[in-house]
Amino acid sequence: MNLAPTFYPRNVAVIGASRTKGKIGHNVVENLLNGGFKGRIYPINPKADEILGLKAYRNIRDVPEDVDLAVIVIPAPLVPSAMEDCAAANVKGVVIISAGFSEIGEEGRKLEDEVVRIARRNGIRVIGPNCQGLINLSANLIAWFGPVPKKKGSVAFITQSGAYGGALISLTNRLGMSFFNVVVSIGNKCDVDEVDLIEFLAKDENIRVIALYIEGLRNGRKFMEVAKKASLLKPIVILKAGRSPEGARAVLSHTGTLAGRDEIFDAAFKQCGALRVYTTEELLDSSLALASKQYAYGDKIVIITNAGGPGAIAADTCRDHNIKLLRLSSKTISELRKLLPPQCAVENPIDVTGDPRPERFEIALRTVLKNEDPSGILLIVIGPLRGGEEVARIIIKYREIYKKPMVVCWLAKEFAGEGPSMVEEAGIPVYDTPERAVFAMASLIRYGMYLRRERG
Amino acid sequence: MNLAPTFYPRNVAVIGASRTKGKIGHNVVENLLNGGFKGRIYPINPKADEILGLKAYRNIRDVPEDVDLAVIVIPAPLVPSAMEDCAAANVKGVVIISAGFSEIGEEGRKLEDEVVRIARRNGIRVIGPNCQGLINLSANLIAWFGPVPKKKGSVAFITQSGAYGGALISLTNRLGMSFFNVVVSIGNKCDVDEVDLIEFLAKDENIRVIALYIEGLRNGRKFMEVAKKASLLKPIVILKAGRSPEGARAVLSHTGTLAGRDEIFDAAFKQCGALRVYTTEELLDSSLALASKQYAYGDKIVIITNAGGPGAIAADTCRDHNIKLLRLSSKTISELRKLLPPQCAVENPIDVTGDPRPERFEIALRTVLKNEDPSGILLIVIGPLRGGEEVARIIIKYREIYKKPMVVCWLAKEFAGEGPSMVEEAGIPVYDTPERAVFAMASLIRYGMYLRRERG
Repeated sequence: MNLAPTFYPRNVAVIGASRTKGKIGHNVVENLLNGGFKGRIYPINPKADEILGLKAYRNIRDVPEDVDLAVIVIPAPLVPSAMEDCAAANVKGVVIISAGFSEIGEEGRKLEDEVVRIARRNGIRVIGPNCQGLINLSANLIAWFGPVPKKKGSVAFITQSGAYGGALISLTNRLGMSFFNVVVSIGNKCDVDEVDLIEFLAKDENIRVIALYIEGLRNGRKFMEVAKKASLLKPIVILKAGRSPEGARAVLSHTGTLAGRDEIFDAAFKQCGALRVYTTEELLDSSLALASKQYAYGDKIVIITNAGGPGAIAADTCRDHNIKLLRLSSKTISELRKLLPPQCAVENPIDVTGDPRPERFEIALRTVLKNEDPSGILLIVIGPLRGGEEVARIIIKYREIYKKPMVVCWLAKEFAGEGPSMVEEAGIPVYDTPERAVFAMASLIRYGMYLRRERG
Repeated sequence: MNLAPTFYPRNVAVIGASRTKGKIGHNVVENLLNGGFKGRIYPINPKADEILGLKAYRNIRDVPEDVDLAVIVIPAPLVPSAMEDCAAANVKGVVIISAGFSEIGEEGRKLEDEVVRIARRNGIRVIGPNCQGLINLSANLIAWFGPVPKKKGSVAFITQSGAYGGALISLTNRLGMSFFNVVVSIGNKCDVDEVDLIEFLAKDENIRVIALYIEGLRNGRKFMEVAKKASLLKPIVILKAGRSPEGARAVLSHTGTLAGRDEIFDAAFKQCGALRVYTTEELLDSSLALASKQYAYGDKIVIITNAGGPGAIAADTCRDHNIKLLRLSSKTISELRKLLPPQCAVENPIDVTGDPRPERFEIALRTVLKNEDPSGILLIVIGPLRGGEEVARIIIKYREIYKKPMVVCWLAKEFAGEGPSMVEEAGIPVYDTPERAVFAMASLIRYGMYLRRERG
């Protein structure tokens, strides 16, 4: 059964739409409207004629056309009957936000089983229940409550914790990032699980990276099979909770998941080419980097900086992540020596020194790229007091000519005018600290080298 | 020789003050003025009568009173003669921003030696040369070029990379943090070095944490002696570059420093109670936490969350940092079970579940603190859609009653109104992700347990 009508529906009904601000059933209709969804939106509410300017219907059966997607936000005991109504309206996918199912015990488990039976019988795909919803910015679809992405990126995020999904949306908004495209809160995953979603999203051309927060896997073998194929198409980044005894206990009480032996997950992820990360920061940094589609097919990079201390910190961090600093040829070194002022460092890291003229970055990039074959370039730029945009133009120019993966750590951005955003808009990821930029580069290398090994 | 006149001068002269916007000699005078320095500011410039509304003098000797602090921004070859002028004006401290000294080779080394000779002969303390300057917000003193802290905190930062200092000021500004109080860029440290500064700042009551970025130490024995005493008064946090062969090479070409064997630094830092950190994020998170002066004298904490996923992530991260989750007594568990709804998790982590009434946080805090003796409490709050301020009031109330160290990870802050800033203003550090909050708690534990061991 296909997930396309769920992710790209022609129209959406909200069962349990509400006129009361602050209620989830109101927030979802509001988010659908604000998200600019192009198809018809049908609020379903037995007691309202109109919600947020939209004609409301008493039952989804009353809607004058077939409905593709229904979002359900009514109390759990009412959901099975709503599922029957959905079937009658020819619904293809439902997102059940309502809680009160298997997560609360036996009684809820029965309700959930009933939902699944009705869904299977009628060919309806179910996301949830007990979830925060579904976002697909490529379809202007925000069937979701809580924080909503302000900018559109190309990362799909599949999360077993809806709250965590909302938290990351909020965080990337605050940092002004273009990050998410799809967010799916899988809740109790009574039907659609992470494996179905990886399979579907791997083929969605709007998605460049599939990131996951999971607490466990129901079907390891199927996951391996699907993830292995998908990770040849696009990178998969995974944060898995429950890797410690304490975390495993928390996971069990959160979603009833048996976290499983961590070393088995570790080996499995490696085998199928998924990049495992261990922190929220790594999840964000890695996904942002990989969304640039710049994969590094080797592990030897060059660092070019105008700040010595951050350059040294980056060099240390490269070692932490098994990135090597390319040894520059004597030709390159002597050319740099000739072209740069004497206080500059001409071995890798190349330090063009503080508040320099932008052309020093050009000298360093041109000389390195003309003579050497690095797997990637890490640039560290501080300020500068003048010429931030010029530095950006230089970076963009040499990326276009040589097509080498580049990652930028831009410090004291407020002095650099439009420079940092010019670089970002050119598809080169920008980070706030040397450490995070190095981790980003490490992700480009991990995935690039995986591809190289697999494709031979 | 005392550093007090340098950090708390009655008046300041800027030798090389400039009328031209964009020049360092202009930026420094501007920063002094904008910083609200209470004493007289004397721009020194042989060709100007007035700079930024201040009467300018041809030479510091012409200033009609003794000068405490002189900031020097003229070309290196002119600095020795300016030092003689400073001596004649009874200057007690100079900050030499100018570059072109020992960092450029033999010729510069000679100039630097001359500067030191004049300083020693006349009892002048020298910060720099080749540095970004000195900030002391307690004295409204911004003798510094580049980014300036927007809010006042209580961290002193001593940095061997001026650019890195500027980068961190910029970053903390962008995140709206109250962080720095003092920033000293030590440059070539021809006279004042990190040891002098630790000794001085340990006694400065406005400073709660001394953080350092260093590439090497000139006098390890003296450092140990001073740091050991200082770290009984307040925590010292150190990021040391050059810990890898690549980093060591970068450090050598940056400041001519021999990075030294890393395991020796490691042992030395441990012995004198300094907390070593390995990334910029750790430096910030650790310092912010310790600036709250909440030290945890044991390693068993309780996590209270309203989001299951982030709670599980926090539990995993605790294990990474050797933090234990306190095992709750059966009394506590049965009380929580009785008072909280059935979907809540009542073992540590305690999960009061999504979008709860604020009083659930109160139930959890009261029950735990009344029955148990945790070393600290980690709170994870997402949103909530309503009642953010109420949650904040509850957290603050229980901190006041029980005086236990608390750290908060507040997710999706934009829904929480003034809640997060209320908590911050009450002196409880707030973080954006569970991982960073756990690292913060780990710092409170590391330092608290060090104090406990040392004080017996």
